[in-house]
Amino acid sequence: MPSELRLRRRVQFYETDAAGIVHFSWFFRYMEEAEHALWREAGFSIHPPDSEIGWPRVAASFDFHRPLVFEDEFDVWLGIVEITSKTIRYRCLLSKGDTKIATGSLVIACVRKRPNRLEAIEIPAEIAARFQVASSLEPIA
Amino acid sequence: MPSELRLRRRVQFYETDAAGIVHFSWFFRYMEEAEHALWREAGFSIHPPDSEIGWPRVAASFDFHRPLVFEDEFDVWLGIVEITSKTIRYRCLLSKGDTKIATGSLVIACVRKRPNRLEAIEIPAEIAARFQVASSLEPIA
Amino acid sequence: MPSELRLRRRVQFYETDAAGIVHFSWFFRYMEEAEHALWREAGFSIHPPDSEIGWPRVAASFDFHRPLVFEDEFDVWLGIVEITSKTIRYRCLLSKGDTKIATGSLVIACVRKRPNRLEAIEIPAEIAARFQVASSLEPIA
Amino acid sequence: MPSELRLRRRVQFYETDAAGIVHFSWFFRYMEEAEHALWREAGFSIHPPDSEIGWPRVAASFDFHRPLVFEDEFDVWLGIVEITSKTIRYRCLLSKGDTKIATGSLVIACVRKRPNRLEAIEIPAEIAARFQVASSLEPIA
Repeated sequence: MPSELRLRRRVQFYETDAAGIVHFSWFFRYMEEAEHALWREAGFSIHPPDSEIGWPRVAASFDFHRPLVFEDEFDVWLGIVEITSKTIRYRCLLSKGDTKIATGSLVIACVRKRPNRLEAIEIPAEIAARFQVASSLEPIA
Repeated sequence: MPSELRLRRRVQFYETDAAGIVHFSWFFRYMEEAEHALWREAGFSIHPPDSEIGWPRVAASFDFHRPLVFEDEFDVWLGIVEITSKTIRYRCLLSKGDTKIATGSLVIACVRKRPNRLEAIEIPAEIAARFQVASSLEPIA
Repeated sequence: MPSELRLRRRVQFYETDAAGIVHFSWFFRYMEEAEHALWREAGFSIHPPDSEIGWPRVAASFDFHRPLVFEDEFDVWLGIVEITSKTIRYRCLLSKGDTKIATGSLVIACVRKRPNRLEAIEIPAEIAARFQVASSLEPIA
Repeated sequence: MPSELRLRRRVQFYETDAAGIVHFSWFFRYMEEAEHALWREAGFSIHPPDSEIGWPRVAASFDFHRPLVFEDEFDVWLGIVEITSKTIRYRCLLSKGDTKIATGSLVIACVRKRPNRLEAIEIPAEIAARFQVASSLEPIA
């Protein structure tokens, strides 16, 4: 039962901006890349074709400590902090070697797709059973 | 019956890259913005909810003449070059004042969405009837 | 002395994802668009050519209440919440008509660009003098 | 002396659009990812810090044959088609297993960065000497 995932990633040119660093909006995409990889580890796609349920993002945040530049190699660590009946909360750490780059969080909710709206529902048992809360708020070396 | 559209646009910061200019992938998005505005002029959304038909891109190209930088204001002109039974071909010019920035082309096809595939179909008559070919390959001042 | 800004925006196709809604990373870009428009209102570019100072993002967050879909027209309101000697904090509200879409915050810091690093500095007086804190945490109708 | 490169890539969620497929603008970014990986193979960064020369894109095109969807794994093959004194032309093939997804081309030019403009220059000999034209217009299995 996976509870965390570490992803190695390289900064692409189109992720940089005219200040010469990765645009801050990309950190949220890096975090989501790690989330989807964690779900694949658990045996799921977070967005299978024709699924009736979905996982909209309820809240997302980042604190930015150091910039990333073109071709930097960095790690994205994502850990599950909390699983409630209807939501999952993740914590995310970006680092480059020993340097802490950014610290993020993400909360997602489980919904059923209704015509013109999304109805919050309980996380299906077969999904909840495949994830667990990480033992630490940081990657354990 | 609209045949062309001109859009005024400003360069956003997230569209720039570490070379200090707009990343070339954005020109294709600017062209598509103008296309969708042209369709709205004709009274349509190119992607209405729950539509059975779609308009995938078949080919796209740009020649880049001059760079754009952060906060540049520029014009996107899009004109219809050809309408066949199943495709529409556009030509696109980006300019900043009197300076030609880039020249693009885009071909889209009409498809019906089938399970697991897209079937090329004839453009519905009520759509074809609302567009016409532009009288010139350039915006007429 | 501007303290807030309201921007009218339309959802572009490339901002949507396979769930049929605007990808959450775009809300951060919408917020930044409003910030840069606020700076232009104050008479500045936040990223002038060859400037020695810069404004990296220190923290950013959003709570997402309702989705946006293709071609939705919506408003981005950005207000200054706090100006300290070295940072500016904004609050952001996205709404579509009377519907609250999302609530965000953004903190930026003033830095001097040094070789290989960014040094936190005091906000130049001529810049601090041109902004003020908004009188409310919400747009006043 | 590298002449071609093959990259394995997975479709990320933020690369998809409301039609449920990868937005066409992303193919140009995939092509550029492969280009920059090819340059690393040759021992270079295409955008080293503080370089006086740059490599703006002169022309880019794609023909789109089949769509890509979320989590698809695909290959990006990039080969050098022509090296002139001032430009490099690439050809690009995207495929998923045996299915041809898209065919692209990219032309870049070598420039020296001057205040307010880019001056076309000859490709430095030490760079030209490290690349060669690919032996085929297709990846050789």
